[in-house]
Amino acid sequence: MDQSVEIICVGNELLIGKTLNTNAQWLAKRITTLGLTARRVTVVGDDIDEISSAIKDAIQRNPSFLITTGGLGPTFDDKTLEGLAKALERKIEINEEALNMVKEKYLNYAQEGRIEVAELTPPRIKMAKLPEGATPIFNPVGTAPAITVKYENVAIIALPGVPSEMKSIFEGSVASVLKQAAHGVTFYETSIEATKVIESEMAPLIDKVMHNNPYVYIKSHPKGAERVPRIEFHLSTTAKDSTTARKRVSKALLQLSGLIQEKGGKIKPVKSET
Amino acid sequence: MDQSVEIICVGNELLIGKTLNTNAQWLAKRITTLGLTARRVTVVGDDIDEISSAIKDAIQRNPSFLITTGGLGPTFDDKTLEGLAKALERKIEINEEALNMVKEKYLNYAQEGRIEVAELTPPRIKMAKLPEGATPIFNPVGTAPAITVKYENVAIIALPGVPSEMKSIFEGSVASVLKQAAHGVTFYETSIEATKVIESEMAPLIDKVMHNNPYVYIKSHPKGAERVPRIEFHLSTTAKDSTTARKRVSKALLQLSGLIQEKGGKIKPVKSET
Repeated sequence: MDQSVEIICVGNELLIGKTLNTNAQWLAKRITTLGLTARRVTVVGDDIDEISSAIKDAIQRNPSFLITTGGLGPTFDDKTLEGLAKALERKIEINEEALNMVKEKYLNYAQEGRIEVAELTPPRIKMAKLPEGATPIFNPVGTAPAITVKYENVAIIALPGVPSEMKSIFEGSVASVLKQAAHGVTFYETSIEATKVIESEMAPLIDKVMHNNPYVYIKSHPKGAERVPRIEFHLSTTAKDSTTARKRVSKALLQLSGLIQEKGGKIKPVKSET
Repeated sequence: MDQSVEIICVGNELLIGKTLNTNAQWLAKRITTLGLTARRVTVVGDDIDEISSAIKDAIQRNPSFLITTGGLGPTFDDKTLEGLAKALERKIEINEEALNMVKEKYLNYAQEGRIEVAELTPPRIKMAKLPEGATPIFNPVGTAPAITVKYENVAIIALPGVPSEMKSIFEGSVASVLKQAAHGVTFYETSIEATKVIESEMAPLIDKVMHNNPYVYIKSHPKGAERVPRIEFHLSTTAKDSTTARKRVSKALLQLSGLIQEKGGKIKPVKSET
């Protein structure tokens, strides 16, 4: 029932702390709301061996989907497809369909006057060099195609790292495939905040509510400063339909709220962070 | 020379996309500026087997340091120390020094009137249960101690997930150890932005400048919308001292700027994202 997804984000900018990995959060949230489980996120640099080893490790854990971000562009440090080819032990070769996508892009850029010649230089051709057996996915926002390739039971999807391109391709070409794989499973979550209580006093209450509500996951997050304890409780579940999911979470929420109030805590709803 | 660090972030909230992983970025930036290399970031959920497997995999890659965040608190889903003990094949046991730290915290909370009794309940004692051989690190902001433990050549440091606690312990107890391990190596970076050029035209220029400046790493990031191409170039190096590092980057910057302008590009400096 549980369809798992691994995410691999490629980019030195993530490992030197220059860039905040908003792609991973965005993907994790979309994967979750589509009814699948994001199992692991791995961030590696622009290095063929690192990319290849992260992909091989992920495949061994046998997720339903493996989504990578970054490293599809024209420059020397865009190495995801080479890393992927190495991991799958496949040749990398010019894919005609991808080459046409790239060619079309530069013809348009030249017509718009953004570039002088639409010529297919080696850096441009590079974006059409895919591992054997891969299929390109059209990039409506940028130039480099995304790609998809199946390996054993794992559907691998390589998306660009530029957030607008990544999101556009995900929504246009990936979300529907994931949703179908989820077979109607729905995720539901809600949060409440409690003040005037501290986390260690809450631990046995959470245990009790989770014991009574085995399909609901409850997590506490201490949020307040030292002198003003404030704990956020996050309740979530996945179920075959949204009515069941909501009912389950509501029942657990009611029990938890009652127990917190018995301990002298004050409760209020939490606005979502996004 | 190159001291590598792996980061493992533990928390379901990261895998459902509820929380943006600012801890990873903050740590990556601090590690880099201290002169070490953040090699990989792994995000796993609150699951002993997942935590243990991520730690074992990281140890096999033999980094100098392995830093984890999250999962040190009092609730059932704080599982990092159990996962760590499993990975190291060590028993988990009450550490007297850690127990005293925790006891002291609750005595203070009771004196301040935040809690009624300072009693060491099982959830509170849980925060003092460490893998055999581990040493607690005092948490000046929150309750749960951080811990450090050496395994083969890897110095493992487990920090809390609450950002204020994580940062405070890192600055107070971890940064100096990392800095010493870096043996004076310095990181230096700068960025420029170019308009009126597109990334595929820049690829051969970057190759050329990197060939002439073998210690400088240059990465291009397309930033503009489709009709207004804008590329950010990020130049960085690590060197034995900051003068050498600055000189190297400046030389490469000058060459790159010249080549971009020859192609008709316009250049301006970039404000840091942080």
